Amino acid sequence: MINYEPFLSRSAEKMKESAIRKMGGVAAQGRDIISFAPGYPAPELFAWQEFADITRTLLSGSDGAVLQYGPTRGYRPLLETITGLMAARGAVTSIDRLLVTTGSQQGLDLVARVLADPGDAILVELPTYTGAITAFRNTQAYMIGVRQDADGISLDDLDEVWKRQQQVGRRVRFLYVVPNFQNPTGLLISLAKRHALLEWADRRNVLIVEDDPYRDLYFSDAASESDVRPMRSDDASGRIIYLSSFSKTLAPGYRVAWIDAPAPLAAKFELAKQAADLCTGGLDQRVIHQACRRGVLDRQLPILRAHYQHKRDVMVEALRTSLGEILHWPAPRGGFFLWATLPGGLDADAMIGRAVANGVIYVAGEAFFVDDSGRDRVRLSFSAATPERITEGVARFATTVREELDAPRERPRPSVTA
Amino acid sequence: MINYEPFLSRSAEKMKESAIRKMGGVAAQGRDIISFAPGYPAPELFAWQEFADITRTLLSGSDGAVLQYGPTRGYRPLLETITGLMAARGAVTSIDRLLVTTGSQQGLDLVARVLADPGDAILVELPTYTGAITAFRNTQAYMIGVRQDADGISLDDLDEVWKRQQQVGRRVRFLYVVPNFQNPTGLLISLAKRHALLEWADRRNVLIVEDDPYRDLYFSDAASESDVRPMRSDDASGRIIYLSSFSKTLAPGYRVAWIDAPAPLAAKFELAKQAADLCTGGLDQRVIHQACRRGVLDRQLPILRAHYQHKRDVMVEALRTSLGEILHWPAPRGGFFLWATLPGGLDADAMIGRAVANGVIYVAGEAFFVDDSGRDRVRLSFSAATPERITEGVARFATTVREELDAPRERPRPSVTA
Repeated sequence: MINYEPFLSRSAEKMKESAIRKMGGVAAQGRDIISFAPGYPAPELFAWQEFADITRTLLSGSDGAVLQYGPTRGYRPLLETITGLMAARGAVTSIDRLLVTTGSQQGLDLVARVLADPGDAILVELPTYTGAITAFRNTQAYMIGVRQDADGISLDDLDEVWKRQQQVGRRVRFLYVVPNFQNPTGLLISLAKRHALLEWADRRNVLIVEDDPYRDLYFSDAASESDVRPMRSDDASGRIIYLSSFSKTLAPGYRVAWIDAPAPLAAKFELAKQAADLCTGGLDQRVIHQACRRGVLDRQLPILRAHYQHKRDVMVEALRTSLGEILHWPAPRGGFFLWATLPGGLDADAMIGRAVANGVIYVAGEAFFVDDSGRDRVRLSFSAATPERITEGVARFATTVREELDAPRERPRPSVTA
Repeated sequence: MINYEPFLSRSAEKMKESAIRKMGGVAAQGRDIISFAPGYPAPELFAWQEFADITRTLLSGSDGAVLQYGPTRGYRPLLETITGLMAARGAVTSIDRLLVTTGSQQGLDLVARVLADPGDAILVELPTYTGAITAFRNTQAYMIGVRQDADGISLDDLDEVWKRQQQVGRRVRFLYVVPNFQNPTGLLISLAKRHALLEWADRRNVLIVEDDPYRDLYFSDAASESDVRPMRSDDASGRIIYLSSFSKTLAPGYRVAWIDAPAPLAAKFELAKQAADLCTGGLDQRVIHQACRRGVLDRQLPILRAHYQHKRDVMVEALRTSLGEILHWPAPRGGFFLWATLPGGLDADAMIGRAVANGVIYVAGEAFFVDDSGRDRVRLSFSAATPERITEGVARFATTVREELDAPRERPRPSVTA
């Protein structure tokens, strides 16, 4: 057997399995496990009948292009549809700024490849989306964490961190933020802070990657359309690279998302995508386009908001009842996630075995931190499980936490500097 | 307006537009242009009715996983199907060696990311598939060209090139080859040479990336199933990373291909794919799986072989009639491409303007060479156009060549070292 280690690139040596994907593997083992791990949308809400109708028409064979290779930029009518979606979000855009991506994960990957070199600095929140960490890590750039306040990223810490990078001679290429119902914390950045971030980016000559998959999923008791206005919509100087997706609203099985960016950067993302996968699936793009054109997306949004808000209520109520005095979390105002701090310094990753034994899984918080902190945090997704399963899953989770608190503690794991 | 140049990664600075994709843009302009440029399969042969039937069942809504995120490795039943396809090609494989990719372009990208560092050497044929060049270039490795004989890559030159890389201190990470009906030349590597390549890889401790999208499309008058046996099937020592695809046989609009590789490498490709796009589309994978299971693929293959062989005949006959004395090409024994050398040292890229004016396009050969040669070559795809359009397109091409021969020559373009 050949030893393949010497053949690996430096980037491949450092690749790590995503904690979310790993939990997906546990959930797929078929035992009775209630999963609060991946941020899956609720499949019972997918517009099955409408997708079937749309697809029947598309597969008639009258248009060969439906199953052919397509342009790297994306299917032109879908790009035009996205122009309309961006306008509804307050952002004037044009085709030369847009690129359809194979899910937003590809968008993150293209951004990283086009903007970061080994040794550069990329600023991210503490915590931040683990899929972004994975994509950015491959560039061998340094990811530097910035603390959060209750209304999202701390501006003071942001500028401190930037200055420190200047001092050590690292170029800060971009700041990555998820302003709306952040994954994993569920936090919403205030409008005042969004404006301040734009000013900061101008002052410090930094780009901002604004990742916005959850913006349509605000909960009516805690947020509104005006709270989720993208920074992109107020970006007068061209600092924002904006990513959004149909995965949380229509369906992730269609791998369709988009980037909106200043035209010179969009042109580079297009070249990077040529190398990455030539083009996003032609049928998928047409189904998404038709679902927008026929009003499916517009009809879905209020249904989705009410549905996920209800599930959030169920999870919050169950957590309050079972762990209210000892577990703490910021109230989710939208999105898919509840982000909790475990009591007594419990180690969420070390607790996973017990959780699986009790029939529940979550994502241990440290996967979202680039500084090796967050070991007492858990991300609980309330999006996919049914209300009954959420209640049962929280009961199992509460049992797990209480058992862990009562168990003799092992030595803390040695700290590893990231 | 911000100058974005200082924000670009070194890799992004060097990204170039694919010559094939560029020609796709010309073809999409809607004028009466006959395209011999991209290697598009013939859409009239796609199994439209069967795809529609399969999709109706899948979109019933009874299985929510159809439109959900899926495992990065791929949809398990499809992986099992691919195990069977590999067995039919003479290769014993297993799930832990396989990864579904979002088209083979993604496979090339993952291979490059996992195996190549800046400054490494990657060996490729002269000429080679331009999509591979694009993917490999992003690693900032050196691509070193190896000459071809009539039966594919020259073993003598291969070892010479390898030795030269040793002398200059560059690690040779892998050799990339398309043994069956190579893109762009249409060449088939002889079985003896395949065995010799495996021995060479063992002797020199190099991996081989075997890219095999066209193997099923052999022409009965010139090749048979035994001629297209993958090197992978005789790889006793684990040197081969094998890529194949459903794009040329079922449809490229479903972005479904696969990698078969030694398990430790497959695990790394999986991690790289997590960062690249999380997973390949769930519906696409299920449609392809069902098309295999229901026998659609098996029924299609003889139809496709006869169809493309006929189109090859039409193109060869038309070229013989109109340019037979002055244009030269190796006879295509399968696949999609005819590779021709222009007379009188004509520059294929410089001739494009005249070709477009005459209503025909092709890909200029230099896009397939990593050493800036091949300017008098053209790749003509006979796969997508109808027989009538092939005949008409060749007439336009012949006019273009004759006009170009008669035109006053401009100075040759200055040579640029790659």
